[in-house]
Amino acid sequence: MSPDELKTALNWRYATKSFDPAKAVPAETWDALLDSLVLAPSSFGLQPWKFLVIDGADCRQRLRENSWNQAQVTDADKLVVFTTRTAMKRADIDRWIARLSGVQGQSVKDLGGLAGIIEGFCQRMSPEKQHEWNLRQTYIALGQFMAAAAVLGVDTCPLEGIDPEGYDHELGLIGSGYATACACAVGYRSADDHTATRPKARYPRDEVIEVHP
Amino acid sequence: MSPDELKTALNWRYATKSFDPAKAVPAETWDALLDSLVLAPSSFGLQPWKFLVIDGADCRQRLRENSWNQAQVTDADKLVVFTTRTAMKRADIDRWIARLSGVQGQSVKDLGGLAGIIEGFCQRMSPEKQHEWNLRQTYIALGQFMAAAAVLGVDTCPLEGIDPEGYDHELGLIGSGYATACACAVGYRSADDHTATRPKARYPRDEVIEVHP
Repeated sequence: MSPDELKTALNWRYATKSFDPAKAVPAETWDALLDSLVLAPSSFGLQPWKFLVIDGADCRQRLRENSWNQAQVTDADKLVVFTTRTAMKRADIDRWIARLSGVQGQSVKDLGGLAGIIEGFCQRMSPEKQHEWNLRQTYIALGQFMAAAAVLGVDTCPLEGIDPEGYDHELGLIGSGYATACACAVGYRSADDHTATRPKARYPRDEVIEVHP
Repeated sequence: MSPDELKTALNWRYATKSFDPAKAVPAETWDALLDSLVLAPSSFGLQPWKFLVIDGADCRQRLRENSWNQAQVTDADKLVVFTTRTAMKRADIDRWIARLSGVQGQSVKDLGGLAGIIEGFCQRMSPEKQHEWNLRQTYIALGQFMAAAAVLGVDTCPLEGIDPEGYDHELGLIGSGYATACACAVGYRSADDHTATRPKARYPRDEVIEVHP
């Protein structure tokens, strides 16, 4: 993709308020967007998340009731709930080290130094801070996901204005070790979404980017 | 971009450990990547961030000393420090409403309802929670930035293993209302970075993505 094409795609993107319920994301496109979640970067590669793709119309409706009745929750072709690991314990680190060993061929013993570094890093945080850290990683995935959608010409709407505890309840997450972070509706803008043509109100570049000598 | 091209780009991306100090990002490409920061989505559009592009070699060296001596900090063509607004006060909201009004043409008075909603949302959070919320938004920008770089064939390395307070001190951020969140090195991988060819150790898709009826 050229720099100009990227600019065009990112300027085209907006938080879609009204989705066309009749337009579905093609399977190949959706597959690539799921890959953008699987491949999202995270600190130490720990991937402290699960992404729930909500297919059921009944479940969507109940989630909408936990989302200030925002229509995107039911009308978009896809809805992804981003959930975050609520802590980062030794068992999580061991799971990651085992995966790393299995894929890259180093022994778990050889990866012991790395495991110690990660554990030291995590132990300096309270469980609440670990959850916050994991949440931040999850937002990397959200950012990559929305950018990936934009370059494929797919609309998204990030949803933070939701009741995460209500989502946790609906989705059976209580006690699972994962908690709702946010959601993202995915599909195609409705032709009558008047917010699509509003000029972008970003701060001027020189107010958000400073070149430091 | 096609779904396959996206997959290829995101699989090509990795946290680059060794940058080629001789390879520079072309101006047009860098301009598009700066746009990906300016255009990053954030909750209510508040953009609670500043991005510092660190040009000076001396400053880079001092930051490296606050980054466990990671070579990416000095060797990559570009270094961006992601900083986050440490709170979200009425003045921040008023600034945003004024910008929205200026760009989209509604009066500040007409936007009063929106201002009230945002303020109510923010006031429910302690200043510490506001900072955490702003940090999460900043990580959306990080995610979008790394994905944007990948689709343009540019390498990145996200840097969380830094001393944020040391960065704040070096960059004059103390008392500025902004604090260092993380950094990202940008450039091109060195031909001898052996980590470039390691297989990706993501968890299998069915462990991180669950389809919910």
